[in-house]
Amino acid sequence: MTKKNNRQVYFNGKFVDEQEAKISIYDSALMFGDMIFEMTRSFNQKQFKLEEHINRLLYGIKILKIPFDYTAKDLEKACLETIDINKPFFKSDDEHRLMIDVSRGLLGIYQNIENLHKGSNLIIADFPLSWTVKKMGRFFDLGINCVITSQRVIPSHLMDPKIKNRSRLFYLNANIEVSQFKGDTNWALMLDTDGFIAEGTGDNFFLVKDNTIITPEGRNILRGISRDYVLNELSSQLGVKAIEKNIEKYDVYTADEAFITGTPFCMLPVTSLNGIKISDGKPGNIFNSLLNLWSKNIKVNIPEQIKAWNKIDEKEDIQGPTPYKF
Amino acid sequence: MTKKNNRQVYFNGKFVDEQEAKISIYDSALMFGDMIFEMTRSFNQKQFKLEEHINRLLYGIKILKIPFDYTAKDLEKACLETIDINKPFFKSDDEHRLMIDVSRGLLGIYQNIENLHKGSNLIIADFPLSWTVKKMGRFFDLGINCVITSQRVIPSHLMDPKIKNRSRLFYLNANIEVSQFKGDTNWALMLDTDGFIAEGTGDNFFLVKDNTIITPEGRNILRGISRDYVLNELSSQLGVKAIEKNIEKYDVYTADEAFITGTPFCMLPVTSLNGIKISDGKPGNIFNSLLNLWSKNIKVNIPEQIKAWNKIDEKEDIQGPTPYKF
Amino acid sequence: MTKKNNRQVYFNGKFVDEQEAKISIYDSALMFGDMIFEMTRSFNQKQFKLEEHINRLLYGIKILKIPFDYTAKDLEKACLETIDINKPFFKSDDEHRLMIDVSRGLLGIYQNIENLHKGSNLIIADFPLSWTVKKMGRFFDLGINCVITSQRVIPSHLMDPKIKNRSRLFYLNANIEVSQFKGDTNWALMLDTDGFIAEGTGDNFFLVKDNTIITPEGRNILRGISRDYVLNELSSQLGVKAIEKNIEKYDVYTADEAFITGTPFCMLPVTSLNGIKISDGKPGNIFNSLLNLWSKNIKVNIPEQIKAWNKIDEKEDIQGPTPYKF
Amino acid sequence: MTKKNNRQVYFNGKFVDEQEAKISIYDSALMFGDMIFEMTRSFNQKQFKLEEHINRLLYGIKILKIPFDYTAKDLEKACLETIDINKPFFKSDDEHRLMIDVSRGLLGIYQNIENLHKGSNLIIADFPLSWTVKKMGRFFDLGINCVITSQRVIPSHLMDPKIKNRSRLFYLNANIEVSQFKGDTNWALMLDTDGFIAEGTGDNFFLVKDNTIITPEGRNILRGISRDYVLNELSSQLGVKAIEKNIEKYDVYTADEAFITGTPFCMLPVTSLNGIKISDGKPGNIFNSLLNLWSKNIKVNIPEQIKAWNKIDEKEDIQGPTPYKF
Amino acid sequence: MTKKNNRQVYFNGKFVDEQEAKISIYDSALMFGDMIFEMTRSFNQKQFKLEEHINRLLYGIKILKIPFDYTAKDLEKACLETIDINKPFFKSDDEHRLMIDVSRGLLGIYQNIENLHKGSNLIIADFPLSWTVKKMGRFFDLGINCVITSQRVIPSHLMDPKIKNRSRLFYLNANIEVSQFKGDTNWALMLDTDGFIAEGTGDNFFLVKDNTIITPEGRNILRGISRDYVLNELSSQLGVKAIEKNIEKYDVYTADEAFITGTPFCMLPVTSLNGIKISDGKPGNIFNSLLNLWSKNIKVNIPEQIKAWNKIDEKEDIQGPTPYKF
Amino acid sequence: MTKKNNRQVYFNGKFVDEQEAKISIYDSALMFGDMIFEMTRSFNQKQFKLEEHINRLLYGIKILKIPFDYTAKDLEKACLETIDINKPFFKSDDEHRLMIDVSRGLLGIYQNIENLHKGSNLIIADFPLSWTVKKMGRFFDLGINCVITSQRVIPSHLMDPKIKNRSRLFYLNANIEVSQFKGDTNWALMLDTDGFIAEGTGDNFFLVKDNTIITPEGRNILRGISRDYVLNELSSQLGVKAIEKNIEKYDVYTADEAFITGTPFCMLPVTSLNGIKISDGKPGNIFNSLLNLWSKNIKVNIPEQIKAWNKIDEKEDIQGPTPYKF
Repeated sequence: MTKKNNRQVYFNGKFVDEQEAKISIYDSALMFGDMIFEMTRSFNQKQFKLEEHINRLLYGIKILKIPFDYTAKDLEKACLETIDINKPFFKSDDEHRLMIDVSRGLLGIYQNIENLHKGSNLIIADFPLSWTVKKMGRFFDLGINCVITSQRVIPSHLMDPKIKNRSRLFYLNANIEVSQFKGDTNWALMLDTDGFIAEGTGDNFFLVKDNTIITPEGRNILRGISRDYVLNELSSQLGVKAIEKNIEKYDVYTADEAFITGTPFCMLPVTSLNGIKISDGKPGNIFNSLLNLWSKNIKVNIPEQIKAWNKIDEKEDIQGPTPYKF
Repeated sequence: MTKKNNRQVYFNGKFVDEQEAKISIYDSALMFGDMIFEMTRSFNQKQFKLEEHINRLLYGIKILKIPFDYTAKDLEKACLETIDINKPFFKSDDEHRLMIDVSRGLLGIYQNIENLHKGSNLIIADFPLSWTVKKMGRFFDLGINCVITSQRVIPSHLMDPKIKNRSRLFYLNANIEVSQFKGDTNWALMLDTDGFIAEGTGDNFFLVKDNTIITPEGRNILRGISRDYVLNELSSQLGVKAIEKNIEKYDVYTADEAFITGTPFCMLPVTSLNGIKISDGKPGNIFNSLLNLWSKNIKVNIPEQIKAWNKIDEKEDIQGPTPYKF
Repeated sequence: MTKKNNRQVYFNGKFVDEQEAKISIYDSALMFGDMIFEMTRSFNQKQFKLEEHINRLLYGIKILKIPFDYTAKDLEKACLETIDINKPFFKSDDEHRLMIDVSRGLLGIYQNIENLHKGSNLIIADFPLSWTVKKMGRFFDLGINCVITSQRVIPSHLMDPKIKNRSRLFYLNANIEVSQFKGDTNWALMLDTDGFIAEGTGDNFFLVKDNTIITPEGRNILRGISRDYVLNELSSQLGVKAIEKNIEKYDVYTADEAFITGTPFCMLPVTSLNGIKISDGKPGNIFNSLLNLWSKNIKVNIPEQIKAWNKIDEKEDIQGPTPYKF
Repeated sequence: MTKKNNRQVYFNGKFVDEQEAKISIYDSALMFGDMIFEMTRSFNQKQFKLEEHINRLLYGIKILKIPFDYTAKDLEKACLETIDINKPFFKSDDEHRLMIDVSRGLLGIYQNIENLHKGSNLIIADFPLSWTVKKMGRFFDLGINCVITSQRVIPSHLMDPKIKNRSRLFYLNANIEVSQFKGDTNWALMLDTDGFIAEGTGDNFFLVKDNTIITPEGRNILRGISRDYVLNELSSQLGVKAIEKNIEKYDVYTADEAFITGTPFCMLPVTSLNGIKISDGKPGNIFNSLLNLWSKNIKVNIPEQIKAWNKIDEKEDIQGPTPYKF
Repeated sequence: MTKKNNRQVYFNGKFVDEQEAKISIYDSALMFGDMIFEMTRSFNQKQFKLEEHINRLLYGIKILKIPFDYTAKDLEKACLETIDINKPFFKSDDEHRLMIDVSRGLLGIYQNIENLHKGSNLIIADFPLSWTVKKMGRFFDLGINCVITSQRVIPSHLMDPKIKNRSRLFYLNANIEVSQFKGDTNWALMLDTDGFIAEGTGDNFFLVKDNTIITPEGRNILRGISRDYVLNELSSQLGVKAIEKNIEKYDVYTADEAFITGTPFCMLPVTSLNGIKISDGKPGNIFNSLLNLWSKNIKVNIPEQIKAWNKIDEKEDIQGPTPYKF
Repeated sequence: MTKKNNRQVYFNGKFVDEQEAKISIYDSALMFGDMIFEMTRSFNQKQFKLEEHINRLLYGIKILKIPFDYTAKDLEKACLETIDINKPFFKSDDEHRLMIDVSRGLLGIYQNIENLHKGSNLIIADFPLSWTVKKMGRFFDLGINCVITSQRVIPSHLMDPKIKNRSRLFYLNANIEVSQFKGDTNWALMLDTDGFIAEGTGDNFFLVKDNTIITPEGRNILRGISRDYVLNELSSQLGVKAIEKNIEKYDVYTADEAFITGTPFCMLPVTSLNGIKISDGKPGNIFNSLLNLWSKNIKVNIPEQIKAWNKIDEKEDIQGPTPYKF
């Protein structure tokens, strides 16, 4: 492999410059939102829960009947190679955020176009985690204000969010909606059509009540890998009961604490809902304990790392509290 | 403009080879299925209802708040230029199928990557209509068998199909489901969550009962431009009443005729539903009259043109009755 | 009747000072929100559609099985007496806004408390219309921005809004929600649980498309008397078709015009929905024509009257665009 | 404080005669059903679970964003003062039923009316518990017949019953409906819109099956304080498992026992549903054990106290089995 | 054909004594409620709308894929033969009520049992109409009181009532429920799951408002043949507009008149709903006009004929206002 | 009792030839699908869980208010007598499948027909189990492919499947639908209207994930007696946790194993869903262990017995993988 000048993207077995990592307009991914994907992160450059991400990816591929020959092992190898080749382009204090995309490939009627890849695509990009989270540092202290949007999630029996796919315009709609609210700590939180708290547009919701950690049942949501880590590992390490349960706005208003989880930032405290303070409106003790434990487990001070990135780039402001600007 | 060897795609004001018409993996279109699009066709190389397609495109862009500067006039001009530049690459008996794509562009966090287009994208591709329809000629005589899938459409208040967008994995799911049924004239037909007939995965449904043409209310469906042409123009030209109304499976089973409309094939007769014959199981009189009228209006014998394409390419068989193979 | 120093309220056959118009905490109205009511207005001191208001009141009383002996004629007489007695306390340029309240009275278990009125209550208050509308003058030119709330209306089969009653906390919730949005022309607009546009928290919604006036079906809404006047009288006077139909957000975004109706302000233009301009973002022609016609019919320039009130009281600012401050 | 001749009501810091405890017709409570409330009881003149009632009240006030300055301690003090001042007017064998009402106060447009209280209202009434329950004594032996009404509860995501408020006309509708059934032990029991047993119009439902006490999940119901006492305290004192679970009519028909809980009567046995006997149609053993335990805990024989009140007043008959007469 | 002593039932081409008209316990009709049927009546011994009944029967058979060889003509012939053979057993003033049953026959696993009919069954019984209606005479003057049951109809997309079949236990449930109400003119009226008026347990509902006849849309109901006659023939003969529309309880409470239609009694006035009078609580003018017209058209005074039957049999009382006793 | 030549059916206290076991066309069972039933099986000629079947039957009878005098003991006695009398007609290696039917009897209006049984009917048939299952032997090795039908189950609050009744045409519809799919191991599996896995058309569904046995909550399903045996007895005998939980298609696709239970075949492995393999597409270990345990408990090798029946009758093929042929 020759020396590269630039971040490289794994593309069906080869590496291409990041700028060249593109999908044909005739690909099923662009025609139907028909792409399965994962986004990971590292701690100290070491991937976290990569196996879990890959397994979830493979489930999605199987359920959508995408022809695909890579095994879990193949995928892991490709991921690690991608990280290796990109190391030179990462600051030493940054982390590797992988984006693994699998699409079905060209629709049948475009199969005869020459010089286009036939069959499904596997694409693995690797970009600095700091891009995603650098504006989020302040939320570890302030907390975010979750805003219930009129946009509700699509019920899983119509299009299943547990299959991590790209037909997710409604997430974007929720983000646009939240950008219209007053305040600068707003964060979209969607209900399902039964009126239960479902998820954010890229994160899972938790509350704490009477020393029990509670998160919505894994139905109309992506079953996040960070969610799983808190629910099944961190909580028992901490010795606190954690359960899945249908929860409603009322349960949040009367909770002791609340927080969200997501791969890039791990956990953020939720200190109010629709502008109404949860408890005393400050990050909660169990939140702090879980986050400390997580930091300890992976040997990175999670909030400090993110806050540090923010300082470095403080001249730019490409991103507000909702993940994307409108 | 230098001479091209290949079909060209309009890409943000320039033309690129069709094989190079690609979208960055960091584009909102690929991240969120956040793309508005239109697909048109010509008759005798002249675009049909191009203005209507462009207006619908602009409504979608406005509702999704995609920053976009092109006017309807600009868009029309770009479409016509695209056709002009591609004429040399079309057989004289083929038609121009435009695909107009608009995406929001790179998500905020990727804005700093160099050499990637900033801002929204406008892409116009132009490929032979025969690709889409050449296997459909036999259906004008045989009719198709609509199959109600367990996949239902997403209610418009959750994600609106009237905004023609790419978050449409559920359409693909319906097609996959139909591919599992016995028979070779099957075609997906989805119900909405109220149990009313909604639409196919790229077409609108009509029935005829007691000399009235009836099509589902324009709620949980794409309000197709062919649908509009039949509903508001052809029917009155023919002197037959045409209305929008909630319809159910029972109404189809007891109808006098049924058919679907879609841009590429215009109209196809539906001769059975779930294997149960509609009336005598043959294309109906009003269907035939409407199709003849349409052919006459645009001076192309629609079914004969499609059947002719089939003959030419009979050695290949890349596509069954559902639009895509699995 | 002795001379009064103060606005008077009709209270079960007598007149009491406005400050004394109060309901026992043991009344069914306060225990169950069990009160039927109407709010009217005058033009040039003459009540408008009083008969229609009284009839709707009587329907509600009958359906809720409230024991009540007043006939429509009795009610009309009591209303007119109330206005007469209050005339001295009204500025000559103001209008009479009647509030007619009927409650079932004390619950059974409190019937033995002495000195409390037994049986149902009829209360008629009369206060200056300017109180309600004086801050709304600017909206006739600017238009309002309707905001779809996450609060949806209660389906009529659970608690029927057509019965104008006081169990309407959800209206207040919608107003609170809208107060959290950026902007100063926001106005709550609620969907029903099917995702159709229902109503504001005290007003009905209309749009105009292709020269047809369209308002939601009279199902999950109060069937407003102003709504009825526009739908069945003004529109035909103007020679424009007006219909009831299920409408969705998409229909509003793609409408030619939109407006709301309500007894105190008659009509206000809606120039955007969720911050997205409707057509050119200005009050529409049909809106203006309807409002002019209404003004002509009742011989009051409706918008000018309201704007005039605003000038007089410009030092106070007790009310924003949503009817109540939070 | 001068000596009073009459029951007194705490009203924004003062005491007024019960007959004078009234709310302005312009108060948000009467305009929107916008009032938060609690109703308590004493045992041997000592309030039961007063803290829990106050906390629930404060949650409701916070969620509805009612401006309110009283702390839990302030509220407790006011309650106790109210009881003290009213003691002279209570028979020695009666109990104190407090009604604590909080309303937002006058709507904005009425703020300028003189001599009306500005800001939110706190009202605490204290009346004899015997008024509410004296006709219920016979049900401890007979049991009640729950009748499923066609009136269903409003789903909590539309208007949350967990916020104890006055927009509850649908409760009254259910009571009216039940009054039309044959029989004199009927009692309204409502389903939610999913078809699960929800609650009565002022009480929570329980069944017993295979030695487990089961009550509906705390979703579309008021989470009653008596319900909580049975579910979390009495049951474990008795050594019987008690859980929350969605239950259906079928589960009641096939239950071993059933009962309801409510503050005034504590517990009543349900011996049939829609006229179909539950088990042998008699109050169950676990019901009896729970009630005995409760009586023992608070040192009042609950059923005997209620039966005794009935004897005293047997000449009057102001109330049937459903709480209110129509 | 030998002389019979008894009413005869057509049974797969033969006639058997009515007592012998029985279905094997292994028949699909008894295993799955898998039977399509029609019930007709005569006027002056002449069948009314027999062709329409037969066509509806054949639609049901086709949709359920029951193997069946009889044509419409065959069926008509069999019906008429059945009437002929039964004439001797009918009083001269009675009418012929045919019951036409078609079942799929024995389930596959029972096909080997000897001496049981293989294949689908056609059964035509003919019994006196007076049996069904003789207790209904008084309703023509009194009207019936429709009672909304908590039992709602099954949505048509789950099991379609337009296919007249025997899986209708929920109809019986509604009748049982109504039998528990006070009063002796009660009649079950079911809502659909959207809260719209659907149908009775063997009849269709109509109301009259402002000189328009309105009946529920033909969705979650059996589209009755009497309904069709009123909607499409009698109304235009009378010169009154008649439409299908979703209607709610509120619309009934505020209607000018209401009535039901059903084959045996043709039409009955509905004078109250849930005990609340509709208009003045008397049969309406349009009802009377329609019924007179119907009587005139078929040359039988419909109400008088039914009242006459009642007199004859007044000693028996086998049936109350709901069709069946419990 | 005289010697019989033929299988006998218990019919209201008497025995009749199987061919004569028939129900009048005027019976409520045939008019309304108003019949409660049970179907049992023996192991080594000994009835399994007969008491449970009888109890469930009696619950249904009670809930539907069918007048019925038999006690559980009477019913057991009648069942055993029926088996005794039929023993001579069973091959020694076959098993007794009882069908116990209870219908309300003739509708009221037919009560006067002579020579027809008045009152409810109790019918007990006894036929060889091999008839039902002989074609199923191969599924113990191959597994079945469950197919999600567009037909969903009727929600229990509309018509309760827990009451085992004959209004079940929708089960047949699901079977017809599945017969249209490619493949010869297909088996209908229905969702409920919430999108959860409900049941097959005569069987309950289970999956195994991470060593936990999971079956849908007992809501929109028949709570099968085999289901109960696996859930509450076999699983604890095996030492594996077994729970009820809402499950979705996604949970099946990602399960470790899946199977169904039903009285005639006890358990069958589910090796794919909609053609997508579950795990490695083979019967799972826990399935095999449970089935072995069951076989051991009742001393019959369940799969071998069924396979043996298949060999004997291999010349016939009256039944495919879905229970009935269309």
